Amino acid sequence: MKEALIKDLKKIVSEENIRDNPADLYVYGSDASVHEALPWVVVRPKTIEEVQRIMRYANAELIPVIPRGAGSSTSGHTTPIDGGIVLDMKQMNRILEIRLQDVLCRVEPGVVDDDLNRALKPYGFFWPPAPASSRIATIGGEIGANTSGLRSVKYGATRDSVLGMKVVLANGDLVNLGANTRVSTAGYQLEKLMVGSEGTLGIVVEATLKVVPLPKFRCLGIANFNKLEEAGETISEIMASGSSPSMLELMDNIGITAVNKNLSLGLPDVAAIILFEADGKVKEAVDYEMEGMKRICEKHNGFGIQMSYDAKERTRIYTGRKKLFASLSRYKEGIICTDLADDMAVPNSKVAECAEKIHEIAERNNVIMSVYGHCGSGVIHTKIMMDVRKKEQWEDARRVVEELYDYVDKIGGVTSGEHGIALSKAPSWKKARNDLLPVMRAIKKALDPNNILNPHKLQDAPDDWVTATKLRYLVRG
Amino acid sequence: MKEALIKDLKKIVSEENIRDNPADLYVYGSDASVHEALPWVVVRPKTIEEVQRIMRYANAELIPVIPRGAGSSTSGHTTPIDGGIVLDMKQMNRILEIRLQDVLCRVEPGVVDDDLNRALKPYGFFWPPAPASSRIATIGGEIGANTSGLRSVKYGATRDSVLGMKVVLANGDLVNLGANTRVSTAGYQLEKLMVGSEGTLGIVVEATLKVVPLPKFRCLGIANFNKLEEAGETISEIMASGSSPSMLELMDNIGITAVNKNLSLGLPDVAAIILFEADGKVKEAVDYEMEGMKRICEKHNGFGIQMSYDAKERTRIYTGRKKLFASLSRYKEGIICTDLADDMAVPNSKVAECAEKIHEIAERNNVIMSVYGHCGSGVIHTKIMMDVRKKEQWEDARRVVEELYDYVDKIGGVTSGEHGIALSKAPSWKKARNDLLPVMRAIKKALDPNNILNPHKLQDAPDDWVTATKLRYLVRG
Repeated sequence: MKEALIKDLKKIVSEENIRDNPADLYVYGSDASVHEALPWVVVRPKTIEEVQRIMRYANAELIPVIPRGAGSSTSGHTTPIDGGIVLDMKQMNRILEIRLQDVLCRVEPGVVDDDLNRALKPYGFFWPPAPASSRIATIGGEIGANTSGLRSVKYGATRDSVLGMKVVLANGDLVNLGANTRVSTAGYQLEKLMVGSEGTLGIVVEATLKVVPLPKFRCLGIANFNKLEEAGETISEIMASGSSPSMLELMDNIGITAVNKNLSLGLPDVAAIILFEADGKVKEAVDYEMEGMKRICEKHNGFGIQMSYDAKERTRIYTGRKKLFASLSRYKEGIICTDLADDMAVPNSKVAECAEKIHEIAERNNVIMSVYGHCGSGVIHTKIMMDVRKKEQWEDARRVVEELYDYVDKIGGVTSGEHGIALSKAPSWKKARNDLLPVMRAIKKALDPNNILNPHKLQDAPDDWVTATKLRYLVRG
Repeated sequence: MKEALIKDLKKIVSEENIRDNPADLYVYGSDASVHEALPWVVVRPKTIEEVQRIMRYANAELIPVIPRGAGSSTSGHTTPIDGGIVLDMKQMNRILEIRLQDVLCRVEPGVVDDDLNRALKPYGFFWPPAPASSRIATIGGEIGANTSGLRSVKYGATRDSVLGMKVVLANGDLVNLGANTRVSTAGYQLEKLMVGSEGTLGIVVEATLKVVPLPKFRCLGIANFNKLEEAGETISEIMASGSSPSMLELMDNIGITAVNKNLSLGLPDVAAIILFEADGKVKEAVDYEMEGMKRICEKHNGFGIQMSYDAKERTRIYTGRKKLFASLSRYKEGIICTDLADDMAVPNSKVAECAEKIHEIAERNNVIMSVYGHCGSGVIHTKIMMDVRKKEQWEDARRVVEELYDYVDKIGGVTSGEHGIALSKAPSWKKARNDLLPVMRAIKKALDPNNILNPHKLQDAPDDWVTATKLRYLVRG
């Protein structure tokens, strides 16, 4: 069967863009998640027409197709749970047009976030989503997950900056969604439905993106707190006060300790740090925002407050946050940082309570969890740090994920802020949004009746993430 | 049949909330569009449960249900083309919660835009969509049409500020969509799909809205142009320069003449006027934006430029735009201003060309058309002003609509910027977005298999809008 598949694919794309040697299949068999499953073949299309022909073929032959960007997704979005074709979109990486007279650009899905921003910078514009992985993350991947990133509190999520797109549907049809304008309301706004659909409804082959003027001034502040609760109250009050931060980040003591150990940044050993940033074209306006946020930090006993416009100094302050994930990986000998329970969104007023709860759940279940995230947007990130070699730790992790997301649902939050659901968040999400599953399934069926696009994800994911696929770690016993 | 229907409905809602006398049916048989068709009955639900029970009943009996807010829609959104039940949502008009610690509010769909903003004002926040009809427009209607309004250039469309909603589906099921957070990505983002779906996919019974801090300073400028083309270039360059106007409006000579005749504002008799506004918390920042926009106006030969922070003066400048529609209605004896070809969105760089084209098409087809709109967002509004009593004028209007929207499609625009498609824009939209119709129909079928929710609109609308319904004017011959 596989030989026939390869032979058929060779009629569509050139031989060097078809990979089926074991090493390649292994690489494409996992992403940043805990999951692993090998595809039958990896195809790297270069044109829209190739994608259309692949989809027509796969739809006729009922072969699963999993689109993939950088593979930095955290929950198994790109894991080929049933095998099939992984569609590596990274070769479709042209910036097709920067059209400032209409304040937009058009790109192929494989363009890397940082590359796009480098190209936009000389024009004085940028593309706002700023995931910590911007060095590798592709626009297609950001669309798939509705990435929001560090500046979402001011600039919104990917969805808010996507004006339109070309999508190849499951049956190979090419459709043009959206508009070339900042607003439009011309039929169901499918371009917004596609954003965040995790590759289950269509293959994005081109995107029209709204670009945003680069601010002339950026000022970054840092404040220390001896109580996590006070940091949380600060975040909620900053947002309720009408402040407009361009970044509002939280780091807990575990994150601080990890960063200090790894980077020798000399951050104070406190319960929590808040990073707050404002940006703008006029310094007086940035000052105004920064002073307002500083006052609120002080009101809630924030101390050691520093603020700086200087790019180098900002980088220094910011490095701890940007390198947090890498630092957590080296937090403790024998402990691995897994992308589990990695993402949620809660109302601003619940950030502190949720952070405390995460610590409590972690402690009770023999794992370590650091709390951080884009808390101005309500996004909380964590990781489960544990000895992945021990089978019982996976039982611990299962309990943690379940308890945490049950709690998040109870306080009016949602299972994912910006990483998506895929496999490892699916059981919790399905439980929380039970009312929506029939609607989601009806829409999936309407657009992909043969269920070939990234199957068994989201509403169709297995009910137990631990056994949904092989785990990509060597687990003993 | 009708008697049985009323009898059944009385089991669900109290008698005073069921209307079937001819006068009421007549009122609910038209909106701001040219269309007219009488419903069988008008029901005014007061609770979510009543809506659910009505939908369950209607779905079982295959009775069309048309949700309606203020009835200010322009294209026949609320016209009960097949009769059925008009669901007047205006009695569900409670502001349920203003929860600033999470920067949101929860409202029922019948809340009027201006009422919500009056309630938010003491807290220093507002709800950004600002249709010219804000005095009567309901939140539910704004969601149905994805209204964007005068400040969309800075604050986006309704869709951008809707965080979540409760929706009663065609089968009566109640679902909770979205989140209580600024960003989220937890399954298909159906709350965004619902916005702009014109009542064809579900009945919005509650909405969670992001609120935005009120600016401390607003400065409004006005510039005159002797050439429409230069006004258009100004708009495109303002946007491409990275300026952040909070309003960027165009009015052509026909609009100016109408306003002058009606309001004696003494506006100069020029080819075009641009209104430009900036807002912010700090005066220096607003000054910076205003000076930047002023320079661009001057570069393109704008003259007679005035700018003012003063609220009274701003109201004076702004009155012409706000009262434009009303003024157009009195432009010429025997000429009626119809809501046809009323709305489109084009790339910023095409605004001037499109405005010229509208005048050319109008002249060639014996009608009068004024061009105005939220041009910073690419939204262009017009009206067809004609003698509605003459049958041949409707043939003229048919040609105008067709020619204009063919042109809009050709230059990369879309059929509607913020008013929606419904009936009178549907033939043009269907022609332009032919590739999308199968997808739209599949989604409609997935959510409303019995086709009872506002049937025969959008993708299912008749192919000729002139004969789609009775016209609400007395046409001779």
